[in-house]
Amino acid sequence: MEKIAMIGGGSWATALAKILSENGARVGWWMRSKDDVQHLQRTRHNRRYLSSVAFDLTRIFPSSDLDAVVKEADWLVLAVPAAFVKDVLDKLDRDTLRHKRIITAIKGMIPGKNILVTDYVAERFRLPHAQLGVVAGPCHAEEVALEKQSYLTIGSPSPELAEDFCRLLRNRYVKAHPMDDLDGIEYCAVMKNIIALTSGIAHGLGYGDNFQAVLVSNAVQEMRRFVHALNPQPRDLSASAYLGDLLVTAYSQFSRNRTFGNMIGRGYSVKSAQMEMNMVAEGYYAVKSIHELNKKLLVPMPITSAAYHILYEKISPAVEIELLKEKFK
Amino acid sequence: MEKIAMIGGGSWATALAKILSENGARVGWWMRSKDDVQHLQRTRHNRRYLSSVAFDLTRIFPSSDLDAVVKEADWLVLAVPAAFVKDVLDKLDRDTLRHKRIITAIKGMIPGKNILVTDYVAERFRLPHAQLGVVAGPCHAEEVALEKQSYLTIGSPSPELAEDFCRLLRNRYVKAHPMDDLDGIEYCAVMKNIIALTSGIAHGLGYGDNFQAVLVSNAVQEMRRFVHALNPQPRDLSASAYLGDLLVTAYSQFSRNRTFGNMIGRGYSVKSAQMEMNMVAEGYYAVKSIHELNKKLLVPMPITSAAYHILYEKISPAVEIELLKEKFK
Repeated sequence: MEKIAMIGGGSWATALAKILSENGARVGWWMRSKDDVQHLQRTRHNRRYLSSVAFDLTRIFPSSDLDAVVKEADWLVLAVPAAFVKDVLDKLDRDTLRHKRIITAIKGMIPGKNILVTDYVAERFRLPHAQLGVVAGPCHAEEVALEKQSYLTIGSPSPELAEDFCRLLRNRYVKAHPMDDLDGIEYCAVMKNIIALTSGIAHGLGYGDNFQAVLVSNAVQEMRRFVHALNPQPRDLSASAYLGDLLVTAYSQFSRNRTFGNMIGRGYSVKSAQMEMNMVAEGYYAVKSIHELNKKLLVPMPITSAAYHILYEKISPAVEIELLKEKFK
Repeated sequence: MEKIAMIGGGSWATALAKILSENGARVGWWMRSKDDVQHLQRTRHNRRYLSSVAFDLTRIFPSSDLDAVVKEADWLVLAVPAAFVKDVLDKLDRDTLRHKRIITAIKGMIPGKNILVTDYVAERFRLPHAQLGVVAGPCHAEEVALEKQSYLTIGSPSPELAEDFCRLLRNRYVKAHPMDDLDGIEYCAVMKNIIALTSGIAHGLGYGDNFQAVLVSNAVQEMRRFVHALNPQPRDLSASAYLGDLLVTAYSQFSRNRTFGNMIGRGYSVKSAQMEMNMVAEGYYAVKSIHELNKKLLVPMPITSAAYHILYEKISPAVEIELLKEKFK
């Protein structure tokens, strides 16, 4: 029986914990809040996310003791918001992690460092990338709860690791397939939130479906240019792991990034949108990381630049989207 | 002043007539129904489609006299349903058409012949392809009526023709750009309706957004394989004319193809779905044409094949989508 440490209590962590535990794995499940842990132990439900899902307590082991959860596991699945992953990882040490396989389910970069989660893990704990992987959609966690047909991709330079984790995921309603493009998949997972956010801004300004379709088409080209500059290898951006993941986010009415962008487009300040939503959209940080990373690369990234100007330089959304409009075709 | 013959009275014809006439062109506008012509002349509105749009009667000249409308024009814009285009064209002769430039706005193939509209025109009237072009989205006609920002692509082997027609379209809310891939754009415009229809079938069966995103990703690959087999030239399927047009159709709640597919997925027969909708979705014919055309090419086209089996061989939608599901990744 495979032993997994699920790190995080959000909707994506909950969906993965459901899939993995129902497939027979033992899932040690770390959540920061002791109350959430107790609620899960008492009721079998995560009270905050996908609360309809009932867990089997002989398979999942909720705990707020990070070290204990990690020590017991063969696999670590990182599923906390990007903003907190560094804090969580910094509580661990190399000896605990050196023989574990680590999968990131985080759609964001290490704050302040502008590096991918896997690159941070590799560097900080001196682990080879062959011990690391990323899990990508296209996948709304909500549809996993409903057991709707979903597809996951595991990206890793190690074909064995990717295939092994795929095997833990596959079931009646989940198909999983391995790919070797760890970086490309991880960067695209970060960038899709920028696109969903910008798409929300345009929607908030009154732009319609025609513009949205052109935005997404141009976004695919922007993502391709960027990942190619960072890591030139042949990759087909129309694969599910890239385009599909982008679509499920950019066309979702439930995307927090899109909702956040929509408020910005309607004239909310970043601060008031964050207060109103009582959370921060990951795309907000992703914009800054990708924009700063691109200062060295100088890839033409009109969408990311527009979002950066709006969110960090207080340029009017109407002006920026108007300029963006001229660049699209 | 450019003189245009708009052939057809549907929503797309109405949107193009609005754009062209407001830009100063003289639009002779042929509609089959005399009542519709009279209504337009009397009220300035097309009573059937985009009825909020008021036309300037010093710019548009509605008529049910096909020959007169065509004779006066420099440009012919074909915007009737694919099912009727052959009947309309067969009323015209080579002498009338030989010096005209002809743009097709039709998203379908010549029924029974499985050839593109431009290929039929070129063959029947012995016209060079350099006199022909296609206008493609991504563009909901309804958003043109609302003057929402839209993008059009003109595909033609003649850069002058493409640019000239672009110039007639560009305005405050329409951007237009030329491309040389007449065939590729025209085939993709046909195929997107197959994808929207199949997407509707899956939705009718209860599949969700995760599956839809994977379907669209796999569709891009299927479209690329097919157009490449027919006409191998470098083309980026993530351009707006291909991917954008597909997205605006496949993600539209208003797409007739999607609605038709949805009814099939819910268990309606083709006949009862057609009766219920009181019209035929273009994708229904497109499936047959593309499927038959592919008998020579033998390109792997799992989505088109599934749609063909469901619509023409009465295989259960549940079974076909289940099989399709296994082929996707």
